[in-house]
Amino acid sequence: MFKLLIPPSHPRRESLLIRERLVEGFKRGLVALEGLIAHGRGECFDYLIGEKTQPFALKAIEAGVAALLLAEYPVISVNGNVAALVAKEVVELAKVIDAKIEVNLFYRTREREKAIAEWLKEHGAEEVLGVGEDASATIPELFSERRRVSPRGILVADVVLVPLEDGDRTEALRKMGKTVITIDLNPLSRTARAANITIVDNIVRAMPLMIKKAEELKGWSRERLRRVLENYDNNEVLQEALKHILHRLESLSNSKLVLEIEEACRTSSE
Amino acid sequence: MFKLLIPPSHPRRESLLIRERLVEGFKRGLVALEGLIAHGRGECFDYLIGEKTQPFALKAIEAGVAALLLAEYPVISVNGNVAALVAKEVVELAKVIDAKIEVNLFYRTREREKAIAEWLKEHGAEEVLGVGEDASATIPELFSERRRVSPRGILVADVVLVPLEDGDRTEALRKMGKTVITIDLNPLSRTARAANITIVDNIVRAMPLMIKKAEELKGWSRERLRRVLENYDNNEVLQEALKHILHRLESLSNSKLVLEIEEACRTSSE
Repeated sequence: MFKLLIPPSHPRRESLLIRERLVEGFKRGLVALEGLIAHGRGECFDYLIGEKTQPFALKAIEAGVAALLLAEYPVISVNGNVAALVAKEVVELAKVIDAKIEVNLFYRTREREKAIAEWLKEHGAEEVLGVGEDASATIPELFSERRRVSPRGILVADVVLVPLEDGDRTEALRKMGKTVITIDLNPLSRTARAANITIVDNIVRAMPLMIKKAEELKGWSRERLRRVLENYDNNEVLQEALKHILHRLESLSNSKLVLEIEEACRTSSE
Repeated sequence: MFKLLIPPSHPRRESLLIRERLVEGFKRGLVALEGLIAHGRGECFDYLIGEKTQPFALKAIEAGVAALLLAEYPVISVNGNVAALVAKEVVELAKVIDAKIEVNLFYRTREREKAIAEWLKEHGAEEVLGVGEDASATIPELFSERRRVSPRGILVADVVLVPLEDGDRTEALRKMGKTVITIDLNPLSRTARAANITIVDNIVRAMPLMIKKAEELKGWSRERLRRVLENYDNNEVLQEALKHILHRLESLSNSKLVLEIEEACRTSSE
């Protein structure tokens, strides 16, 4: 259905190609239908941000990578959309920072867990936690299937990267004392506001930058990494993201909004 | 598969339930994949608006209902998302204002037309136009299947309610001299800007309000209804919607955004 050729000149080509990856992921059984809707919301915020990585995102990427490198037990959480969009990058980042990878679904089914784990392994992952029996531990305060995590993964992690996560779960992880890093295009989402470090950017742009930054920061001393974290202020970063959107909308809104339509004879009864 | 309970305490429960209704609609063959992504974009603007019906929407609802009551031949246009979200309300509103209901799809297929008509009939519709042979008339300037309408419906209507509509088609309807009322969460969309009356609100909140308003305004004289329309300014309404979003972003971007989380013992290595 989306298999139409997108001309190289199309101004929203990048965005449409990402969409096709997600639809492809849906067909492979990785992505939930709700995941497609969530992606649409992300697209809209990306449009508002300008579809480019902004300074506030770069700051958060540096802090996030510093936290992951300082972690004793870092875990990267992967859901359907993350797998469909950045499987290769998740595996690569996990290798650079020596982190576990765990499947962590909002709409958990055994089939989807397996499909995602397979997909990650096809992209080079050696171990994928959180599949089937392995997701046997539970996060307090969450309901039903949403609280299940791996006792060798998120349960014991000190720092978790949970991109495109639900707000309830982000809060639950925070309450457990974990340092939570997220990637979320919506600076107003509860996830964005509950995380310790929020990268307001498209995951497709952010993940390669995280890998590059991880390779760079790996050479830094723990003290220097700690200083990055000390100087980081997530509230400031979220405010900057909002201000950026605000200014973009402001310039859009300073024009006449109604379109002039040349009407044929009016048929209305007004 | 998606029938998991969303806990009553989940702060975004309403939004998640709406999402599930759309997924249900997709499974019933009402909603296109593109419709799911489009819904996500709507969610983004609902966030910016504050997920509540605002005064500018109430003004547009009143004007929209007045135009529908004054119409000689009002038609409500229904696509997949509209059917999935507010089938019952469409039927109810059509009865109160004595309007025709017409299936009108951006991605038209015979199966989807039929599924939507069936769904509307299950919700009490007696007649549904725009299905199969009935969609035999064409709107000028539109291509392929997108221009097909019913000769007993949109083609001859003087006032059309086209919620969640495409910009091209909204413009085409305007050029034909019709009074166009739309419901669209994005005040910057071409649909929002091309319509005569734009209700910037979530259709799930707006439709019940329209029914209530229609019942109230049915008792008004035509003159009084005409006065409502005379005093209505869509450009003003769109500007108010944008200003509302801007003010919200402004005050949020100056406030504390990060949520206070009461953490258990920190396990982090920071």
